[in-house]
Amino acid sequence: MKLQVSLDRVDTQQALDLLAGIADLVDIIEVGTPLIVRDGLHAVRRIRQAYPNHLILADLKAMDGGAYEAEMAIGAGADIVTVLSVANDSTIRGAVSAAHRLGGKVMVDMIESPNLAWRASQIDDMGADYICVHTAKDVQAGGSTPLQDLKTAASIVKNTQVAVAGGIDLTLIDDIAAQKPEILIVGKGITGAASPRAAAAGLKEHML
Amino acid sequence: MKLQVSLDRVDTQQALDLLAGIADLVDIIEVGTPLIVRDGLHAVRRIRQAYPNHLILADLKAMDGGAYEAEMAIGAGADIVTVLSVANDSTIRGAVSAAHRLGGKVMVDMIESPNLAWRASQIDDMGADYICVHTAKDVQAGGSTPLQDLKTAASIVKNTQVAVAGGIDLTLIDDIAAQKPEILIVGKGITGAASPRAAAAGLKEHML
Repeated sequence: MKLQVSLDRVDTQQALDLLAGIADLVDIIEVGTPLIVRDGLHAVRRIRQAYPNHLILADLKAMDGGAYEAEMAIGAGADIVTVLSVANDSTIRGAVSAAHRLGGKVMVDMIESPNLAWRASQIDDMGADYICVHTAKDVQAGGSTPLQDLKTAASIVKNTQVAVAGGIDLTLIDDIAAQKPEILIVGKGITGAASPRAAAAGLKEHML
Repeated sequence: MKLQVSLDRVDTQQALDLLAGIADLVDIIEVGTPLIVRDGLHAVRRIRQAYPNHLILADLKAMDGGAYEAEMAIGAGADIVTVLSVANDSTIRGAVSAAHRLGGKVMVDMIESPNLAWRASQIDDMGADYICVHTAKDVQAGGSTPLQDLKTAASIVKNTQVAVAGGIDLTLIDDIAAQKPEILIVGKGITGAASPRAAAAGLKEHML
């Protein structure tokens, strides 16, 4: 089980400052969507320079131009890129074939998928590397967690590894870890903690 | 009817070079999703400096964090931001209220909406300023155009103005213009033409 930290509501320098305190506890560094919106792939490039040996995920949430965006992000130093499950199949397939040609991987983000089980089963056949069940930040505000979606996805996929995101913290970690996702994605649960290092270390203790 | 040029597969300097030849023919400058991925909101900031009096749209395609992303983009100088119709209602409503508080506007991009008529009718009640029917680049490759979706949306919305995007060029312009969309969005049809200026001028002749 890998720990992915998502760096979202920060600029690139703040992301680097945060990483300085936690990078050794983290398996995958996620350059989050709002950080990409803020600083573009320059954020990926700078973090790649600082952390040449970490896995880096660029949370593009591609909705169109899947091949083009995947190529750009992998060219900037990302190992994994994301595409939305609500995108057209051709966008997902385009991202997968471009990423694989360049030695990268694709995570399909199931955020707001109107029929998770049906779509997860389709995506499992498209060659994507990871499928990510994901409760949107704007939906977490209503008290939702990704646990049930994680159970659903884990019971369906055969080829694709499962990742999970959406408000994961110490209160949720044991139920989540029990489902054995390959990647556990935590943002505010680490970056918003009084001690991000203590929070990351605490989560790792509950991971298998 | 306004002409919006989308600047997509370029960097910020190339976007500025292109604009130098066409800006006086264009009503809205779109900082396209791939340009935001490449250079972040720095692209919006630089284009705003160069064109203080144009409308600028930041094609965020927000899928989560609607309020946060809208605030960032409007803070960088955008007048209009986009959010995806497949996002959760709370994300769309968050973007709308944040944008309106700051004097900005929201365009909801209907790209890959599984039920255009139903969703357009819902979004028409959410306070968004524009609804954009949009055939994805990755779908245009199969020969699709946004004309039928434009007719559907135009027949449904009461409060929201209609924009249209997806492979619009001189062969499509008359059929599209006949539906009287408020905003006609053209990317490659201008930026990929031998003479972008001649292409923009040619399209304008067919707009009402």
